[in-house]
Amino acid sequence: MAMNPVLVEVLRGSQTESFHRGAFAVVDVEGAAVVAVGDIDRPVFPRSAVKVLQALPLVTSGAADRLNLSDAELALACASHGGEPLHADTAAAMLAKAGLDETCLECGTHWPYNEAATRALAAQGREPSALHNNCSGKHAGFLCLACELAGPGVNLRQFVKGYVQPDHPVMREVTAALEATTGVSLANAPRGTDGCSIPTFAIPLRALALAFARIGTGNGLSPDHARAALRLRRAVARAPQLVAGSGRMDSRVMERLGERVFMKVGAEGMYCAALPGRGLGVAIKIDDGNNARAAEVVVAAVIEALVTLSDDEAVFMHGFSDNRLRNWRGIEVGALRASGSLRAALGAA
Amino acid sequence: MAMNPVLVEVLRGSQTESFHRGAFAVVDVEGAAVVAVGDIDRPVFPRSAVKVLQALPLVTSGAADRLNLSDAELALACASHGGEPLHADTAAAMLAKAGLDETCLECGTHWPYNEAATRALAAQGREPSALHNNCSGKHAGFLCLACELAGPGVNLRQFVKGYVQPDHPVMREVTAALEATTGVSLANAPRGTDGCSIPTFAIPLRALALAFARIGTGNGLSPDHARAALRLRRAVARAPQLVAGSGRMDSRVMERLGERVFMKVGAEGMYCAALPGRGLGVAIKIDDGNNARAAEVVVAAVIEALVTLSDDEAVFMHGFSDNRLRNWRGIEVGALRASGSLRAALGAA
Repeated sequence: MAMNPVLVEVLRGSQTESFHRGAFAVVDVEGAAVVAVGDIDRPVFPRSAVKVLQALPLVTSGAADRLNLSDAELALACASHGGEPLHADTAAAMLAKAGLDETCLECGTHWPYNEAATRALAAQGREPSALHNNCSGKHAGFLCLACELAGPGVNLRQFVKGYVQPDHPVMREVTAALEATTGVSLANAPRGTDGCSIPTFAIPLRALALAFARIGTGNGLSPDHARAALRLRRAVARAPQLVAGSGRMDSRVMERLGERVFMKVGAEGMYCAALPGRGLGVAIKIDDGNNARAAEVVVAAVIEALVTLSDDEAVFMHGFSDNRLRNWRGIEVGALRASGSLRAALGAA
Repeated sequence: MAMNPVLVEVLRGSQTESFHRGAFAVVDVEGAAVVAVGDIDRPVFPRSAVKVLQALPLVTSGAADRLNLSDAELALACASHGGEPLHADTAAAMLAKAGLDETCLECGTHWPYNEAATRALAAQGREPSALHNNCSGKHAGFLCLACELAGPGVNLRQFVKGYVQPDHPVMREVTAALEATTGVSLANAPRGTDGCSIPTFAIPLRALALAFARIGTGNGLSPDHARAALRLRRAVARAPQLVAGSGRMDSRVMERLGERVFMKVGAEGMYCAALPGRGLGVAIKIDDGNNARAAEVVVAAVIEALVTLSDDEAVFMHGFSDNRLRNWRGIEVGALRASGSLRAALGAA
């Protein structure tokens, strides 16, 4: 197993209580690693961190235009959302445009990740549907793509069945987009099933970071992919609440920094980001996975170090990379912060 | 930072997606380490894993007898519970016996950890109170102890104010019990503030494991502490739903194995356990903390290796140490399991 350095420390009082090891790559459009910490060549499952790559065929196929998808809808196609009413309603609207509905979703159902949204549903005596699944926007995007791929005269509801399977035409397009942007052939890559039932392929951080350098600049992409990437990034910048939701880091940071950063969390300690102004892509994996707290610290430290920020913006980002922890009574009990070795690696970039 | 071995692997498909490093000690009543994996001498915050030690003064003071506390109430005093109605009601009953109420609790308020309990509260249009805090039983126990310590003629509501502070008579008793059972002087130990606002002291895993060997056997304890430990362990074995709750590992395992195991999870990857039949104590800390998933695997593997189990019980425990992971549609996507090095260390014990 890779012996990666400590990237994040969790302090209680002045003592380190826990710590997170991991690896990350910051790569330019030529594929050169500007920062390489830990093992960036081991294939890792990117999970939801690559939703923007998986959404490219929705645009390149013409589906987004033909169905007249809005910025909010395109942002939701790239989202891991909180299942708030705005999210569920937008997913439903996308499906309606495709002539489909939530019964076609194959992502499964869970209560909203946003706790207030869960309590509100419960207070109304309602149960969640697949629309509340954090991946429902991505899946609604897949179904819009299916609508385009099916072609005239095909029974669409028949056609979309099993769209999450690796060999379905929808998933073939999605996998081809991953291959084109990362430059990695996935035919023999380790494959797992994601939480929402689509395949997830293990890809080295170095290649994921390259894909995001390309997504942020268009360099190294086909003209179609470059245009689609720009459109998706702009859509997210214009509708940042759709890509995650209330209080969530991705929404908060992109609301503040606009198109200067595109960032996306994934399960099990993943993060990918594009820093278009610098022509760089970023990919992060925390060894222990588990939840997003450590990866959030790392991506914040990367943005602080590599994006030109105003003083206020720098203070805002520092709140994520040196995050004061409070207990149930609001008493400050510790901190979640970038380690010295993480800061040093970024300082040398 | 300690370079501890990988104890738990998270697989997606056949590929390791994430992994958890950590340390643990299995110690006999003489303090000899039967198993020592990783750095067991670094002080770690035990958090809620030592609630049974913190509950000893509730019994030794005579408060439990004078207030006629039931097994369920004593179990709740050792609990990190889910905030289910049974838990909140039992905490309220303890406070009533002491002549106090929830306004005296200084643990803070949060929505129940049990998601169904949260949704049920929301469906009733209610908000949580401090009774739903996962530590409310421990705090109700502290307040029952305060009732005894205050003595006659003292204004109890005045006396209990600030009972979470290190120098309050209640917390002095609690700290003294930690010192007596672990054999560690805490005056100069690293101190932090716990989620529920009481102090938490950093203590080496070796000493925590010794305390639990003592708790499980009475050996090495004062007669009062030995009797109190037995009473608390029995109370938890008789009311295992009180110590955690629906679906939670501590409740499920102790419901199944009874007094053969006493186990308690703590925040940030902590577990402590007593294996009375073997005269052993166990203390586990996962480096990354974060949540309980990895520590649960380790404690399950320890129980499998060191407790005499029927075939059915062994299968039951193996379900925790080699835990098949399913996604939102119930499809098996991977596993959370004991690493080869963990199994090997236990096999050699």
